[in-house]
Amino acid sequence: MEHHQSGRHFLQIPGPTNVPDRVLRAIDNPTVDHRGPEFQALSKEVLAGLKQVFKTKSPVVIFPASGTGAWEAAIVNTLSPGDRVLMVETGHFATLWQSMAKKLGVAPEFIPGDWRHGADPAAIEARLAEDKTHAIKAVCVVHNETSTGVVSRIGDVRKAIDRAKHPALLMVDTISSLASIDYRHDEWGVDVTVAGSQKGLMLPPGLSFNAVSDKALAAGKSAKLPRSFWSWEEMIAANKDGWFPYTPSTNLLYGLRVALKMLVEEEGLENVFKRHNRHAEAARRAVRAWGLELLCANPAEYSSSLTAVLMPEGHSEIRFREIALKRFNLSLGSGLTKLRDKVFRIGHLGDFNDLMLMGTLAGIEMTLDLADVPHKNGGVDAAMDYLAHGEAGRAKKRAVA
Amino acid sequence: MEHHQSGRHFLQIPGPTNVPDRVLRAIDNPTVDHRGPEFQALSKEVLAGLKQVFKTKSPVVIFPASGTGAWEAAIVNTLSPGDRVLMVETGHFATLWQSMAKKLGVAPEFIPGDWRHGADPAAIEARLAEDKTHAIKAVCVVHNETSTGVVSRIGDVRKAIDRAKHPALLMVDTISSLASIDYRHDEWGVDVTVAGSQKGLMLPPGLSFNAVSDKALAAGKSAKLPRSFWSWEEMIAANKDGWFPYTPSTNLLYGLRVALKMLVEEEGLENVFKRHNRHAEAARRAVRAWGLELLCANPAEYSSSLTAVLMPEGHSEIRFREIALKRFNLSLGSGLTKLRDKVFRIGHLGDFNDLMLMGTLAGIEMTLDLADVPHKNGGVDAAMDYLAHGEAGRAKKRAVA
Amino acid sequence: MEHHQSGRHFLQIPGPTNVPDRVLRAIDNPTVDHRGPEFQALSKEVLAGLKQVFKTKSPVVIFPASGTGAWEAAIVNTLSPGDRVLMVETGHFATLWQSMAKKLGVAPEFIPGDWRHGADPAAIEARLAEDKTHAIKAVCVVHNETSTGVVSRIGDVRKAIDRAKHPALLMVDTISSLASIDYRHDEWGVDVTVAGSQKGLMLPPGLSFNAVSDKALAAGKSAKLPRSFWSWEEMIAANKDGWFPYTPSTNLLYGLRVALKMLVEEEGLENVFKRHNRHAEAARRAVRAWGLELLCANPAEYSSSLTAVLMPEGHSEIRFREIALKRFNLSLGSGLTKLRDKVFRIGHLGDFNDLMLMGTLAGIEMTLDLADVPHKNGGVDAAMDYLAHGEAGRAKKRAVA
Amino acid sequence: MEHHQSGRHFLQIPGPTNVPDRVLRAIDNPTVDHRGPEFQALSKEVLAGLKQVFKTKSPVVIFPASGTGAWEAAIVNTLSPGDRVLMVETGHFATLWQSMAKKLGVAPEFIPGDWRHGADPAAIEARLAEDKTHAIKAVCVVHNETSTGVVSRIGDVRKAIDRAKHPALLMVDTISSLASIDYRHDEWGVDVTVAGSQKGLMLPPGLSFNAVSDKALAAGKSAKLPRSFWSWEEMIAANKDGWFPYTPSTNLLYGLRVALKMLVEEEGLENVFKRHNRHAEAARRAVRAWGLELLCANPAEYSSSLTAVLMPEGHSEIRFREIALKRFNLSLGSGLTKLRDKVFRIGHLGDFNDLMLMGTLAGIEMTLDLADVPHKNGGVDAAMDYLAHGEAGRAKKRAVA
Repeated sequence: MEHHQSGRHFLQIPGPTNVPDRVLRAIDNPTVDHRGPEFQALSKEVLAGLKQVFKTKSPVVIFPASGTGAWEAAIVNTLSPGDRVLMVETGHFATLWQSMAKKLGVAPEFIPGDWRHGADPAAIEARLAEDKTHAIKAVCVVHNETSTGVVSRIGDVRKAIDRAKHPALLMVDTISSLASIDYRHDEWGVDVTVAGSQKGLMLPPGLSFNAVSDKALAAGKSAKLPRSFWSWEEMIAANKDGWFPYTPSTNLLYGLRVALKMLVEEEGLENVFKRHNRHAEAARRAVRAWGLELLCANPAEYSSSLTAVLMPEGHSEIRFREIALKRFNLSLGSGLTKLRDKVFRIGHLGDFNDLMLMGTLAGIEMTLDLADVPHKNGGVDAAMDYLAHGEAGRAKKRAVA
Repeated sequence: MEHHQSGRHFLQIPGPTNVPDRVLRAIDNPTVDHRGPEFQALSKEVLAGLKQVFKTKSPVVIFPASGTGAWEAAIVNTLSPGDRVLMVETGHFATLWQSMAKKLGVAPEFIPGDWRHGADPAAIEARLAEDKTHAIKAVCVVHNETSTGVVSRIGDVRKAIDRAKHPALLMVDTISSLASIDYRHDEWGVDVTVAGSQKGLMLPPGLSFNAVSDKALAAGKSAKLPRSFWSWEEMIAANKDGWFPYTPSTNLLYGLRVALKMLVEEEGLENVFKRHNRHAEAARRAVRAWGLELLCANPAEYSSSLTAVLMPEGHSEIRFREIALKRFNLSLGSGLTKLRDKVFRIGHLGDFNDLMLMGTLAGIEMTLDLADVPHKNGGVDAAMDYLAHGEAGRAKKRAVA
Repeated sequence: MEHHQSGRHFLQIPGPTNVPDRVLRAIDNPTVDHRGPEFQALSKEVLAGLKQVFKTKSPVVIFPASGTGAWEAAIVNTLSPGDRVLMVETGHFATLWQSMAKKLGVAPEFIPGDWRHGADPAAIEARLAEDKTHAIKAVCVVHNETSTGVVSRIGDVRKAIDRAKHPALLMVDTISSLASIDYRHDEWGVDVTVAGSQKGLMLPPGLSFNAVSDKALAAGKSAKLPRSFWSWEEMIAANKDGWFPYTPSTNLLYGLRVALKMLVEEEGLENVFKRHNRHAEAARRAVRAWGLELLCANPAEYSSSLTAVLMPEGHSEIRFREIALKRFNLSLGSGLTKLRDKVFRIGHLGDFNDLMLMGTLAGIEMTLDLADVPHKNGGVDAAMDYLAHGEAGRAKKRAVA
Repeated sequence: MEHHQSGRHFLQIPGPTNVPDRVLRAIDNPTVDHRGPEFQALSKEVLAGLKQVFKTKSPVVIFPASGTGAWEAAIVNTLSPGDRVLMVETGHFATLWQSMAKKLGVAPEFIPGDWRHGADPAAIEARLAEDKTHAIKAVCVVHNETSTGVVSRIGDVRKAIDRAKHPALLMVDTISSLASIDYRHDEWGVDVTVAGSQKGLMLPPGLSFNAVSDKALAAGKSAKLPRSFWSWEEMIAANKDGWFPYTPSTNLLYGLRVALKMLVEEEGLENVFKRHNRHAEAARRAVRAWGLELLCANPAEYSSSLTAVLMPEGHSEIRFREIALKRFNLSLGSGLTKLRDKVFRIGHLGDFNDLMLMGTLAGIEMTLDLADVPHKNGGVDAAMDYLAHGEAGRAKKRAVA
């Protein structure tokens, strides 16, 4: 039996994230007729708001399905059986997307990776340059690899494709980056952006999204993979007037309306990104102060959504997280597949603030002690120093004084 | 601009239905880690409870996707491209399922129908008997056709298949019947039952279900349609320990737990069915008293979930429903495709009671007046008579007195 | 044990009324610091909004206490031990207020009444005219007597006092009329208006109000009854800056903000009154059609909040209401003290609409049948006729046709 | 204008406290008829549950009014005008209760205090011993003085009264201690215990309580202060069958039911007290490590609900708290009257846990830095050490290793 745990749970996995009370209360409103005028106004509002979050003028499609579905939609709407696609092994989720592609009947080429770096634009360019016949129909990259806390530089990937003068579609998974880390569907020439509700969008899981370029829509005309539920065509046609071709997830759309208002109107997207950057930097300073190693090997690719931390050799992250949950009511992310029992992940995305981060880091520091993981104290202190004083910390302040 | 409407909306479309306050409040709880022990206990509980509702010992799969997805899942998990399936044109939704089957690459044969009758077991038997080579891989029937208010007799369809000694799978859509009209997955030898959250299960839209027989699972082994999101195999394997292969719709599962408790433990499924039968009979008595015609032509196939009513020639149901919505805050179901502007549908399923029905019927009777639809008054009175006194009505009571 | 009841409860007592979902969701937000800036903005907003509802420019005081408290506040803030006050026996609540006055140490004179009429302005004038020494310090009248469904004409009472040239304060209970029946604190020269949250203001119980004239405030200076919790002085002083002298009922104030928005901005107070008038007239037509007798004997004093109905001699309203609750999930108001087991009361105030009324009336008509209360059918029909066609009903329409 | 603040607010004033989500959701349920069977079951359940929290077999009265009301009730139900009562100046709230007593017409004697100590049993004994005529009718003590974080030892006060063989009633304010700090109404022979909903009971403000001994009830028979709303007699009589003499605060009672279940059944009261003791000790260790001074001068009187901290001379707590709120979304308690701008108060009571405390303490430590308050860092570290390792801290652990 679980023992009673007082106080608020610290849900610091890298998603689902802490859903704001206002969003939960919105979801709790009575379901309306999705063929009536009240719903129509709602769907027009959220469809418009989403474009701002994806930074696109193209349509954004909302599926009444959790994030994995939007991966499938990206593939079945643009590709034909046997089509070659170039994917990059940035971690567990990139690997899953690649297996999905295989299951759906396309032929992924998988650029290998060490799970500590993002997609390498040069490698992509090289592979595309070789592909004289343009057999490769799409390049698929995970923007923020949720299993590793490593960000791939999508703008640079775009440039690599352009330099190779290759017509492949660019498809990007932003499930754990959208509305947390700066992302630009149009500016970066992305053809399909895949996203989900339960991370930066601060909603429960259950909605997923595709932002779709004209080029992707055009590709869909000749794509032969069977599709019905995920089909963009009927969706975009119906969305024009605020309708859906089949029953939408009405109550989550209530929540989406509030979440968009909070992100776009109240806090402002650029402030949202700055907030995430700041918390991520504080978390990394704590990790370094503990003497632990960050999984992400390239500072230019640090994630602002989550931080993955390597456990010292011989120490189990599974046991570590069990103690954190049991003693401190703190959920941390686990190591996945290759990283099983080797890393833990700290989610610091979504509706989050300085003191929630400090509670989280304190929980980790105390658990390191309790689990007898070799470390130095001082992580919490380093994070406080940064949150209060910024880059230079107290040192500078004192120097000035 | 919509004018302000005081009081409670009457959501009397045949789904989404009125979500009980307790279910909405449950959904409003903070999202938890779907890889933690609290979630595991939740998913085990709802997976077990669902079996009781489907009346099956086989696995029930929960998709974090609205009902249409479970149609797609039934097909892609059991069939191969070009497979022949026998479907029955009972109405709009049967037709949509058939178009979906085509889009997904199978070859439906569609037994034509007049949208006023259920599937004819004899016609199915005849067709299967002809199919000596067993080219037909599945028979697909909609249990309760939401567009017409006509129920197909699934037990009789089963017997027809058995008489034809045909090995085809039996796949049944119960989207608007499950937990409203008696349904028996195991007893009727159904192989795949398709269902959704937003009707008799009294939840918002966003979950859908497949109950899956051993025979269907076995068919899946050789089925060649590409599948990933909808794949039963990984789902059933993960479900065994209370997990999901990808992010589930956690908050709707909170609601499902409460809804199952209400249906199975508190009211009891058999009482739920009796309640629906009683409200449907009261609604039909009202319709007859108004002098209007029921769309369902066969009393043995009346639906207990909804009642579709033919508008008198020359009268628009669209205008009629607009008046009902504007004047009385009452949403009724529209006529779909073939029935467009010809029938309106009264939903009386889900979390419903006598006085909600009376409000609904009064709204209709007043709207008939206001819209100048030729009719007799007395429908509301006939319904009250039945609700208070049962079959015989006041007449009997008075006769006795 | 209570058996399970599906569907929505019909809470048709004359208060607490059906709380709108939006108001409940507002109340469900986390409590904030009542000494912080967010709370300050909230309290300024609701204090200003309340003035519009009371139609006053004077302060309105909010007590974190249910309605009865505001009765006590009116007395202890204005009177001294032994002070004579003139009260009018309009029914159960007027009688309770009078007993309270006695308990608090003032000396009420109670103009007797038959519980079927409102306060008689002429009787008040006569009594005040006799009171040459101005021993009477206050006249206390219940605007809408919740136990009887009879409205006292406060404007006329004001004129009566003026004609008598008497300086007594005028104190009015609007607990079941405010925001349901037109009421004008300033125009009618009321000195203290007493109100509660759980009726026309569409909130749960727990807040109560005094609107306070300058004259009442001045009377307070010399009033000698002990007071602390109910004291206006500290309250009004603190309210000026948006504060309270002790802990306010923060979460109910969240709800009040939404309710005021709905009443004042969205529907508009005058529309709210028209809606209540219309539902009350429909209810009365139903009662007459049943052949039952209204308790209110004077059509000029009909209440728009509730309708009290006399049970035929020898029939128990207690048993009647038990059947309504058990069979139809319908709560009706009981007969109180003198009227015990003699009348039932239909609440039709607050967040209410045509179809909620029709469900209620249908529940009553069916219960009359089931309880063997002698009556004619046709009440529901009469109400529908009025709601759809207004004054003249179908008859006129047909005559024209 | 307030700027947007992401994430969860840290409401660390010493009440209102953080209301658990489950309690808020309970309050959000539709209001029912408080004269119907569903309400009756609710009120019987909460009335019984409260006795366990007060540790009494005597009746506990629930007022639909915030905490201050229960102070007034204690006085008006037991005393007569001019009655002498002995009160003790433990801080701001004791002083307010004393002023209230004066306003209500009794004659408090106020044993002076320095706001850094609890009530002195010896001083009470001495004063009572002098009172040969038993003119003193009641001794009133605040158990946990919310303005200072000092606890008065009620058991010792009881013994002091007994030693003086004085018949005075013992009345105790437990507003910020009940369900946080061990309290025993019966064992300590308390006659009237005063409590409120918004602290240890984890509810929004709006309910208050009196636990009432037989002796207090007997005193009420002859007590002459006017009373009506606050009168115990009608309340206790009505409560016997689960009713209330006037409209109760139904929705808060829904919340109370859940809160009692959490405190009594799930966590267990003794565990609740241990949790509060532990958090208070951690907070004090942080304060000491910062080099700041605790207001409470006697370790035997430390409060487990809150910790009041003296600001160094010349530093403003008002400015300090403004920075904490603006920069860290953290509400701390202010210095009241005598302590204005001199102390800040950390609330660590109610639904609270280790990481919420760590977030709070980190917010304070960073604010000390930002506000240039002279201090040492290390408070957060000291608290972590205690929370993880208990009394001895890491030191012991290392010594052992």
